[in-house]
Amino acid sequence: MAYRDGMTARARTEERRAEIVRAALAVIAERGYRGASMAAVAERVGLTQQGLLHHFPTKDALLVAVLRERDQWDALPDTRWRVDLLASLVEYNAMRPGVVQTFSALLGESVTEGHPAREYFTERYTRVRASMAAALRAEYGDRLPNGLTPERTAPLLVAVMDGLQYQWLLDPESVDMPGAFRDFLRLLGEPAG
Amino acid sequence: MAYRDGMTARARTEERRAEIVRAALAVIAERGYRGASMAAVAERVGLTQQGLLHHFPTKDALLVAVLRERDQWDALPDTRWRVDLLASLVEYNAMRPGVVQTFSALLGESVTEGHPAREYFTERYTRVRASMAAALRAEYGDRLPNGLTPERTAPLLVAVMDGLQYQWLLDPESVDMPGAFRDFLRLLGEPAG
Repeated sequence: MAYRDGMTARARTEERRAEIVRAALAVIAERGYRGASMAAVAERVGLTQQGLLHHFPTKDALLVAVLRERDQWDALPDTRWRVDLLASLVEYNAMRPGVVQTFSALLGESVTEGHPAREYFTERYTRVRASMAAALRAEYGDRLPNGLTPERTAPLLVAVMDGLQYQWLLDPESVDMPGAFRDFLRLLGEPAG
Repeated sequence: MAYRDGMTARARTEERRAEIVRAALAVIAERGYRGASMAAVAERVGLTQQGLLHHFPTKDALLVAVLRERDQWDALPDTRWRVDLLASLVEYNAMRPGVVQTFSALLGESVTEGHPAREYFTERYTRVRASMAAALRAEYGDRLPNGLTPERTAPLLVAVMDGLQYQWLLDPESVDMPGAFRDFLRLLGEPAG
């Protein structure tokens, strides 16, 4: 009985933590991380600030959980990307503007002085460029049709994905994000059969 | 004499306003717009808050001046861009990380709810996409070598410039922003002689 109760309490705690992280994602999408307050997160999830601090003692601790959640969004481990799946990821992102907005707001802030997400993003981009280069190599070999190496193409691929998100979030009627990304893949050329 | 004094006072006011805008640019680069306070701007420029409010009665009024300043950065009117000048612009940007940081922080924030720079960026991107399409048409005609129209290529060109700025600001040692942008131009192909 004690064991079962223990599990239940733990499950309840985890569920509550997941609710808090979802609330934090929404508050960051609305206000950015610097503009987000623990009070706003607590209110959204129906907790007192004291109750929130029990789960996440600091705002930075909550950010760590948000960034860990962010790592789940891409749905595939870094090493398993294929170029054709990227187009599907961009299609999927176009159906979840809230998530894209949270990420884009955090990325924007991360370049300001001493931002707590800066290291996360710096490391993430190193990793993502490497995994994109691997995906391009699997598709094209050591040179793309235009002569660029996978390593030199990878930062462009990542830049297009990020840059299109800003244009699309600002003006979804004018910017067809998945279509534009497919256009970029077309620029890369056809793999030699 | 009254006239001369009047001019001098006006010139002094304009110089002071320009100093305030420069201070605001630096504070936004450090903290973002939402994280920026009028107190921090006043302190940096050696004014009391009251003195600052004399020049800019609200934080939003100061933001308008900052964004107007931003419009000067590109140095060329929208209608006069040429594709080869874009590579020079990116080279130039790589020498002024502070300015790029202010812009990137503001762009990131602009997608959050009710941000005062949102309309500015939305309109700016509409304008910039159109002027990039015109530059691409002047260079390539109605179709690029890969078959895309200038209008479909323009959002990609803008996205690459913005996306590379984030990667470069986060990790200037690993990301050669001007080199990567030249790689992108290479992807577009050679104009038919």
